[in-house]
Amino acid sequence: MRVSILGAGAMGAALTVPYSEKNDVILWGTEYDTAILEKITKGEEHPRIGVKVAAREILYPDELEKALDSDIILIGVSTEGVMGVFRKIEKYVDSQILITIAKGFIEKDEVLTIPEAIWDEREDLRGKIVAVTGPSIAREVAMRLPTHVTYSCTSHETLDVIKNSLETHFYRIETSTDIIGCEVGSALKNVYSIAISWIRGIESRKHVTMNNLKGIIVSMALREISRIVVAKGGKWESVYGFTGIGDLIATFRGGRNGMFGELLGKGYDVKSALRELEEKGVGVIEGYVNASRAYRLAEELDREKKLKLEDLKLLNGINDVLYHDENAEEVIDALF
Amino acid sequence: MRVSILGAGAMGAALTVPYSEKNDVILWGTEYDTAILEKITKGEEHPRIGVKVAAREILYPDELEKALDSDIILIGVSTEGVMGVFRKIEKYVDSQILITIAKGFIEKDEVLTIPEAIWDEREDLRGKIVAVTGPSIAREVAMRLPTHVTYSCTSHETLDVIKNSLETHFYRIETSTDIIGCEVGSALKNVYSIAISWIRGIESRKHVTMNNLKGIIVSMALREISRIVVAKGGKWESVYGFTGIGDLIATFRGGRNGMFGELLGKGYDVKSALRELEEKGVGVIEGYVNASRAYRLAEELDREKKLKLEDLKLLNGINDVLYHDENAEEVIDALF
Repeated sequence: MRVSILGAGAMGAALTVPYSEKNDVILWGTEYDTAILEKITKGEEHPRIGVKVAAREILYPDELEKALDSDIILIGVSTEGVMGVFRKIEKYVDSQILITIAKGFIEKDEVLTIPEAIWDEREDLRGKIVAVTGPSIAREVAMRLPTHVTYSCTSHETLDVIKNSLETHFYRIETSTDIIGCEVGSALKNVYSIAISWIRGIESRKHVTMNNLKGIIVSMALREISRIVVAKGGKWESVYGFTGIGDLIATFRGGRNGMFGELLGKGYDVKSALRELEEKGVGVIEGYVNASRAYRLAEELDREKKLKLEDLKLLNGINDVLYHDENAEEVIDALF
Repeated sequence: MRVSILGAGAMGAALTVPYSEKNDVILWGTEYDTAILEKITKGEEHPRIGVKVAAREILYPDELEKALDSDIILIGVSTEGVMGVFRKIEKYVDSQILITIAKGFIEKDEVLTIPEAIWDEREDLRGKIVAVTGPSIAREVAMRLPTHVTYSCTSHETLDVIKNSLETHFYRIETSTDIIGCEVGSALKNVYSIAISWIRGIESRKHVTMNNLKGIIVSMALREISRIVVAKGGKWESVYGFTGIGDLIATFRGGRNGMFGELLGKGYDVKSALRELEEKGVGVIEGYVNASRAYRLAEELDREKKLKLEDLKLLNGINDVLYHDENAEEVIDALF
């Protein structure tokens, strides 16, 4: 197969490694990726993952069209960039399989997952859109360390093609037709990671360990995530598999959402936490951007009587801390 | 209420703190606890949790009878000691509520949870036996840090008494009638913790991080635990709540089972790992003792056609490493 990866960030670049085992892989970079593309072209390691990429061909921003007659096209940019890239390429897309890897929500008239936002513009592509979720730290994928993720799609036929062409010994693929459950669970994981990380901040400020509290908050987070997933039409099994728990465990100690949550737990307000991370050169905090969308999704589902927003105590707490200046530790105390 | 705690180990002693908020608490120590009892009687901190206990009265090994006319009696010894203590006290027990906190299996003709083993001898006590499961690191409980656990019992009436008398602001109690699911899930959590901790050992030997693999193994562990729980007549919800996930998260980084698993992941064989821990003064490894029982329980459930033992790949792997000299890293590789 010919596989094109659009976006030369950490995950797009990392996936060239497993994808190249059985396929001819092209890596195209956006205008934000040019410095990275130059290094890669010289044969250097990818600066964000410290590993060499494995693409047969590297394409620069103005060479996008050359990437579009592949059998499989992966949109490897962040949630904010996905629909922009999709609109650039959609007139070239008919029979190709399109993969999305961003973990977030899109706001149109209502809050949508990325596949739903694409279906909304191109219903004919429904069975061709594939989402990747589950625990996959980019650097570990590129280092060929054991990884097992979920590829979801409404079409079994598409999933067969994906599994046959992209699975390797170290990069295992589980397939699921619950693309809504996987995508909602995955986007919410980033949001709830913020609250879980508050505890690390509280611990470091108080010089105590609070493992019991971590156990509680993770359990609460998974319960609330599965309620929202089910209300949105997904399956709870997706949350309690690789996508929800697995990914939460993989990113438990860190990640950008975790760094942000930890600062809030230490007592920073949202602005100072974001400023500190910006000064450190930390990029977009996906969980922060998506928290307000998650809250609006829950409001929509409440209006449709599919869940009660007031039951989602942790999501309400996250909303209070991120958008109403409340203190993380006080919010945690109020949960008891 | 009058509450007696039998066993002055870490958890028994820690529970004097929340229990004393509304009750008159007696702490009785076994012959293994005499050194601890002497310190406590002098007003010193409990040596294993570093916090003072809160009991109104401390009783020595030969004063057991004085502890037995309480409304609630907690058996706070390890799995190996539970039935011994129960048989010592059972002739004094009729209307009292009995709480068990050990997380393990008992082998009679078949593999039983602790409540089942007690019911087997005293069917009349069925609705009086209560199990405690969920994330509760003893030191954190004694320090009044937020903790939320599950008390399970077949009787709603007993659970009401428990919740009303033992819950405090910092020690929250969720109740469940799924005592089998809670007990099986909780005992299996210790067993599977060993395999999860192999990864830390492999990481430290190879000098890499393998967070994706941790995500996979935790997901697999929870799936297998819930299969066994359901086959044994419990509910999967108990595994995916405080008892399973919550407790797994709380003990994720350490605990004795984790230390043992980590050594196996580093390449130690079972004997040398156990010897090293013994030299360090680490006590009973509950997960090791219970792994063979968990395997036999799965064999029983397979014979009864309630699950397929061969589907429990991780449990088979744990059994191979602990009892058939197989190497943890090779077992992990074979899962892929």
